[in-house]
Amino acid sequence: MSKDREISMSVIRRLPRYYRFLYNLKQEGKTRISSSKLASLMGLTASQIRQDLNCFGEFGQQGYGYMVDQLYDEISKILGIENPSPAVIIGIGNMGKAISKYMDFENRGIVITGLFDDSPEVIGETVGNMKVKSMEELEHSCNQYQVEVGILCVPNEAGPEVTKQLIKTGVKTFWNFTHYDIAYNHEDTIVENVHLDDSLMTLSYRLNKSKKDKQNT
Amino acid sequence: MSKDREISMSVIRRLPRYYRFLYNLKQEGKTRISSSKLASLMGLTASQIRQDLNCFGEFGQQGYGYMVDQLYDEISKILGIENPSPAVIIGIGNMGKAISKYMDFENRGIVITGLFDDSPEVIGETVGNMKVKSMEELEHSCNQYQVEVGILCVPNEAGPEVTKQLIKTGVKTFWNFTHYDIAYNHEDTIVENVHLDDSLMTLSYRLNKSKKDKQNT
Repeated sequence: MSKDREISMSVIRRLPRYYRFLYNLKQEGKTRISSSKLASLMGLTASQIRQDLNCFGEFGQQGYGYMVDQLYDEISKILGIENPSPAVIIGIGNMGKAISKYMDFENRGIVITGLFDDSPEVIGETVGNMKVKSMEELEHSCNQYQVEVGILCVPNEAGPEVTKQLIKTGVKTFWNFTHYDIAYNHEDTIVENVHLDDSLMTLSYRLNKSKKDKQNT
Repeated sequence: MSKDREISMSVIRRLPRYYRFLYNLKQEGKTRISSSKLASLMGLTASQIRQDLNCFGEFGQQGYGYMVDQLYDEISKILGIENPSPAVIIGIGNMGKAISKYMDFENRGIVITGLFDDSPEVIGETVGNMKVKSMEELEHSCNQYQVEVGILCVPNEAGPEVTKQLIKTGVKTFWNFTHYDIAYNHEDTIVENVHLDDSLMTLSYRLNKSKKDKQNT
């Protein structure tokens, strides 16, 4: 069903939202939804939804709407959720622990095969149902499980070295919680950055701006 | 120094990156940097940097570059980091705990005045150097500290109710880790969403797409 042309990142970034909203509709027992109803739920326009979904194939019928189950399954396929990719988490401090316990990886297309840290205090600890391994075991473990994704929760300064180690084992895809710019330093990588600091500073800026604007009116 | 016109969100979202890069330059003892050098460090163009900074005032001189200290201080002011805003974290599960221990709030323009949860197992626990309080204490505490920011780490289904409680105490600014769409449901709020699930699914999509592309070549 999928088309072969390049799809813009802004459309791609909306896909997980479609997936979430369709999941909720399924849970509510809805079987069919019009593009205008889905649009109003998601705060988009009906024409934007039709355009977005059109990038991936032909869904729904004019005047009939979308079959919830079918569209959910198709988007799940497009997102690759049915074929989870093996991943490791590096850095099992506060954030690494939270991520490994908090995320529903398997329903996001990822299966965690190992947790790694270089601190003797953390190595051997059980987090979730996994024992934290030492960095010396990383290469062997990545080869064994054919790991494709590295999740980086290490301190910023460890970013370059850990990235190099992972790339050496064949990992090219990164979920990056550090400030290290992997994509800039390593061509041919796929990187999603989670910059919590930047998000929080943007919030501070917007709050302060609104306070200043109020003072000026 | 700041100008009064509307600044686009894409420029605003780049500000924290400038702030981080200038911080690193300061740490390295650099006093001056040209826009082309800063551009190459940040993976931008020199003209984009000049345009971005121009939104906020006049920095640097043609042919001379920017004074690192001065630009850092100005951006810090623009971001509101000098005037931290009081905030509470609601939901002290894995993510709430990680956020409260991991983030350097005070250098991001935020000061945490309280941690709240509704689970008897968590209430009373010490996280960082703070005792987790019950949701019954929320209103009083928000009034006492004139809390302006709510950080939501609760399960998705608790999003609507917790948001309402915070808005009732006067909070209008949210750092939101839930999928609940606060801005859509409450006008006149300032919201930064951290959608970890969406970020991870986008990564899965991009990895699967690159595997399919390779199979097809």
